[in-house]
Amino acid sequence: MPSDACLANLPRLNDLAKREGFDAVIATSPENVTYLSGFWAMSQWVRRGPQAYCLYPLNGEEPALIANSSILDLVADQKPWVSDVRRYGYFQIDVDASATLEPDDATQSELFATDAYAGSVEALVAAMKEKGVAKGRIALDETGITPQCMDELLAALPEATFVRSFGLFQRVRAVKTPVEIDILRDVAAITQRAIEASLAVAREGVSEREMLRAFNGSLVADDALPVTGCIGFGPRSAMINAQPSDRQLRPGDLIRFDVGARYKHYRSDMARGAVLGEPDKRTAAAYAAVEKGIERSYEIIKPGLKVADLFTEVVETVRREGIPGFRRSHVGHGIGIDGYDPPTISEAAPEVLEENMVLCLETPYYELGFGGFQVEDMLRVTRDGVESFMTLPTALRVV
Amino acid sequence: MPSDACLANLPRLNDLAKREGFDAVIATSPENVTYLSGFWAMSQWVRRGPQAYCLYPLNGEEPALIANSSILDLVADQKPWVSDVRRYGYFQIDVDASATLEPDDATQSELFATDAYAGSVEALVAAMKEKGVAKGRIALDETGITPQCMDELLAALPEATFVRSFGLFQRVRAVKTPVEIDILRDVAAITQRAIEASLAVAREGVSEREMLRAFNGSLVADDALPVTGCIGFGPRSAMINAQPSDRQLRPGDLIRFDVGARYKHYRSDMARGAVLGEPDKRTAAAYAAVEKGIERSYEIIKPGLKVADLFTEVVETVRREGIPGFRRSHVGHGIGIDGYDPPTISEAAPEVLEENMVLCLETPYYELGFGGFQVEDMLRVTRDGVESFMTLPTALRVV
Repeated sequence: MPSDACLANLPRLNDLAKREGFDAVIATSPENVTYLSGFWAMSQWVRRGPQAYCLYPLNGEEPALIANSSILDLVADQKPWVSDVRRYGYFQIDVDASATLEPDDATQSELFATDAYAGSVEALVAAMKEKGVAKGRIALDETGITPQCMDELLAALPEATFVRSFGLFQRVRAVKTPVEIDILRDVAAITQRAIEASLAVAREGVSEREMLRAFNGSLVADDALPVTGCIGFGPRSAMINAQPSDRQLRPGDLIRFDVGARYKHYRSDMARGAVLGEPDKRTAAAYAAVEKGIERSYEIIKPGLKVADLFTEVVETVRREGIPGFRRSHVGHGIGIDGYDPPTISEAAPEVLEENMVLCLETPYYELGFGGFQVEDMLRVTRDGVESFMTLPTALRVV
Repeated sequence: MPSDACLANLPRLNDLAKREGFDAVIATSPENVTYLSGFWAMSQWVRRGPQAYCLYPLNGEEPALIANSSILDLVADQKPWVSDVRRYGYFQIDVDASATLEPDDATQSELFATDAYAGSVEALVAAMKEKGVAKGRIALDETGITPQCMDELLAALPEATFVRSFGLFQRVRAVKTPVEIDILRDVAAITQRAIEASLAVAREGVSEREMLRAFNGSLVADDALPVTGCIGFGPRSAMINAQPSDRQLRPGDLIRFDVGARYKHYRSDMARGAVLGEPDKRTAAAYAAVEKGIERSYEIIKPGLKVADLFTEVVETVRREGIPGFRRSHVGHGIGIDGYDPPTISEAAPEVLEENMVLCLETPYYELGFGGFQVEDMLRVTRDGVESFMTLPTALRVV
């Protein structure tokens, strides 16, 4: 049974997968394997190519994890709730026969004592046959399996029907579990501390790159990893993905942060603005307009709200409050183990808000030759409203 | 013409691709798009799904870059040598008509003035038709394009023949250009400084996690990003991918580092051992054996050496020098924009060493209940021997 180590919203997965008539679900991408199994397969996260899968049968059979022999130590160390592990590939490990093994080493030794399959697909196919889903309708996450492995799988199981299911995983992930919410709250706090650490070095002559170093330094001191560190000064604040350069901060410069980290595999994404000295009127007015769009979202977000209506209301607020020509493809998105989970808060969004969606609400306005203005908050949809994950004020910060 | 910003070994690409009868090569994964075009497409690097491609025709036509409208600022900022850019998708950007634009903003504004294709495949197909390679034999990197986009591409160009070419890219990348060698030398130096910074906090009671924080802090201060930070103490040093825990350092503990970073998109990967206080005899002997395997490799590496012979010689040295049962799947691999480039230094390796291969030579020995012993050096094959990228001594460090 899933323990605290289970990240996934299994009731939602069961519900959606059964409604769509699936006999099993298979995760293949790093995000979905970790999400479903609780197992972080390092090689798969840091490179493209290494294969790890989680097979989740819907017939009541126990789920299985398929992992390369070279990462069995991580299974022993992490103790994922999916504990039926099939290994593949050769890896040499020795055991000191004279030693009393620590519990994790004993587990690892047992895992190595199982037979290794030649490849990831052989291991997956064996598990599917054993669990009685080799002839079924299978929701397969198409984003992590290589085309070569997919060919092998189709050839090995001609009676199975594979349906691409990255979208299914996304829909499941859209509503967060309590474990996920706790981590997302933590990564939001860690990221805000890093923004503060970066602002603490903001003075005339500091470079964008130096502010990024302070930002990243704070993240890693909190055991998080840098992912997106967009920090732009002055006109460079209008660069959508401003990559920190040697540009130095000058009086009156706007500073735009659009930044995110990864902590315990989960992502943050948020934005704030600051200015060195007092802002000019035009800057203050543009920033206030985007800020008010976000403030408005807090007044209306609750379960049942149409996402498309949220989009319209936020965009109209920014227009009314000072940027009449404000146009956007979206004003936010879900966030979780991936930086973008559903829903995308756009004009055509089909979803309604649900309790425990975690969202990034954002109203970026980029004007080349002038500046980039962005407030982006992380928040959770609660039973009757909103829980903000933000402690940093939204207001334009004067440094 | 390629400028200094060109990372790719174009002569080798031209040679291999023409020998295999290709009319064009298409990069689709983050590593290969950046390698071939010089363009770092952020969204593609930090998530799975966002599409960016580089089309490289072999008929003399100019190569093309396919990028989402939301990352055109990065094109303007990075100025990749592939400058024929086709954008797709809607993204709103405004321009201050009263301002004199900075050069990068002017470039961005011009890029936004081009028509956007609906999707990445439409943009790629248009570029292929224009450049006369829509009916040809196409080497397509299969690792970055989504299955959906691959279906669209096949449907749009029924007369083209697509051949999976991730392997071709790997073979091209195996021999580094001067630009790549400089970056790899830098990332090796940065990573060694981080190991030193981590060792500087090594004392009784420090945790693995605290040593990782010091390691990562040094990396980000040098503008690098953490990728693999395996640091294990005592018996945990035998965990292949030891993820730092709260385990505290005790007198006599072995410390194994197997660590790597990313800097200017390029990877490092190296290993060293240390001990708190004097090592016991058995530890010292095991470490010395793996160390001698690496030392031996320096004596024999030069262009023309069979990689399989290098494997045999290194393994036999470790056996002779103190670990008679030493067995390995490989004793190293190439490194570059990916953590593993060819050749894999294994018994069955078909390659011979070539000048300007950059290799990680490693002789890890994991014995559960005892410890993990690993020396891993980054080095370059020169015209007549080896250039080491290492300044840290290989010897077991006493702290």
